Amino acid sequence: MSALPSFTSATPDDLASARAARSQLKSPHKGQQTKQAIVDAALGLATQIGLEGLSIGAVAELMQMSKSGVFSHFGSREELQMSVVREYFRRFEEEIFLPALAQPRGLPRLRALFEHWMKRVSVELQSGCIFISGAVEFDDRPGPVRDALVSSVQTWLGAFHRAIVQARDEGHLLPQADEKQVAFEIHALILGLHYEARFLQASGALERAVLAFEGIVQRHSPAPVKPPQKTSAF
Amino acid sequence: MSALPSFTSATPDDLASARAARSQLKSPHKGQQTKQAIVDAALGLATQIGLEGLSIGAVAELMQMSKSGVFSHFGSREELQMSVVREYFRRFEEEIFLPALAQPRGLPRLRALFEHWMKRVSVELQSGCIFISGAVEFDDRPGPVRDALVSSVQTWLGAFHRAIVQARDEGHLLPQADEKQVAFEIHALILGLHYEARFLQASGALERAVLAFEGIVQRHSPAPVKPPQKTSAF
Repeated sequence: MSALPSFTSATPDDLASARAARSQLKSPHKGQQTKQAIVDAALGLATQIGLEGLSIGAVAELMQMSKSGVFSHFGSREELQMSVVREYFRRFEEEIFLPALAQPRGLPRLRALFEHWMKRVSVELQSGCIFISGAVEFDDRPGPVRDALVSSVQTWLGAFHRAIVQARDEGHLLPQADEKQVAFEIHALILGLHYEARFLQASGALERAVLAFEGIVQRHSPAPVKPPQKTSAF
Repeated sequence: MSALPSFTSATPDDLASARAARSQLKSPHKGQQTKQAIVDAALGLATQIGLEGLSIGAVAELMQMSKSGVFSHFGSREELQMSVVREYFRRFEEEIFLPALAQPRGLPRLRALFEHWMKRVSVELQSGCIFISGAVEFDDRPGPVRDALVSSVQTWLGAFHRAIVQARDEGHLLPQADEKQVAFEIHALILGLHYEARFLQASGALERAVLAFEGIVQRHSPAPVKPPQKTSAF
C-alpha cells in the first residue's frame, strides 16, 4: 500500500531527517491539524471498542463536532478506519522500529525489536492492540480496511524478517535459520503474552515470554548465547 | 464453574462410560432437544459474527422461531452466550482432549494434544475460534460471559499443564521444565498459527507451528527427541 510509510527500506539517517523535518513543520494547515486530532481521538476509541465499531457518529460525538464536519475530512467510514490503521502503524514504527535502529545490526537489534514490542504490549494491556483485535474483527471481512490491516502487518513482519536475515548475515544466527520461521515463533510469543496478560490476567506472562524468546534465539544460534543481564526496554 | 464438564480429573474409563451413557439416551425431552438445536445454531452463528454479536433475535430468525420461543429456553442473552461457550468447550474437549487420552501418558499424549489442537485450528480457519475471538471481544468487558470464557480456557490450560507434568514425571521432559512455561509456549504457537493462517492467509504456517513445537519439546527434553515420521492428526 503506497499510503503506508516505507520505513523498512530507510536508513537510520533517512529516518532521522524525516523526523526532524516533521517536527520543524510550523503551523500546518488548520484542516490538517483538525484531521489529525480526529484520527488521534478515533484511534483512542478504536483501541477501546474495536476498529469495527468505529463510526463517523461516535467520533463526532467524542470530538463534539457535527457528523458532517467529521465526514468532510474522510468522506467515508472506511477511510476513517483506514486513517486509524495508518496512524497506529506510524506509532508502531516509531515506538518499536525506530529505537531498535540505534542498536547494532544482528542479534542486538533483533532483541531490541522484541523488547520494544513487548513493552508496547504491556502498555496496551489497558487498551488493546488493533493489529490483534482487528485481525479477529476483519479476518472474514474482505475490503479496504482488512487490506490496510494486512498490509501494515505484512510491512512490519517484512522489516522483522530483514532484521533476522541481518542477524544471520552477522553470524549471530545459524546459516540455516529461516527468517519466516524465527519471525513466526517470536510473533507467536507476542500473541501469547497479549492473550495471557490481557485476557487471562495471568501473572508471570512477561517473564515467560522473555524466557521463551531466549529459547528461540538459543535454538537458532551457532553457539550458546548469554542473555543480557538487563533488558534495555524495561 | 460448576456448569462445565470436569473431564480434567476423569479417567479414560469414566469418559468412555459417560459418552456411552450420553449416546444411549433415547428421546430426551423435546424441550431439551429444541434447546440443544438452538445452542448448535447459535454456536454456528457465533463463530461467524462473534459471541458478542449474538442476540436472541438473530438466533430466533435463524431458527425460524419467535423471539419469545428462544427466550423461554435461556431467559437472557447472556445465558444464551454462556450456553454457547459451554457447548464450544464441550466440543473442544471431545475433539482435543478425549482422543489424546488414547495415547500413552507423557510426551505421546502431549504431542497428541498439540496435533488435535492444530487440526481444530485448521478446521476453524473457515469459521474462527471463539476462545480467540471471544478473548478480544470480552477482554475489557467484565461479566458472566467473560467469566465463562476465562473459566473454560483456564480449565483446558489446567488439563494441558497436567499433561506436561506427566511428561516430566515420565522423564520425557527435564525435571526443571515448568508446566506453565511449556504450556505458554505451545499455546502461543496455536495463536500464531491462527493469526498467520486465518488473518494473513500465509502459506506454510502449519509447518512452522510443527517445527516450533519440536523445538520447544527439544529444549525441555533431557535427550534429543526424534519427531514422529507422521503426525497422527494429519
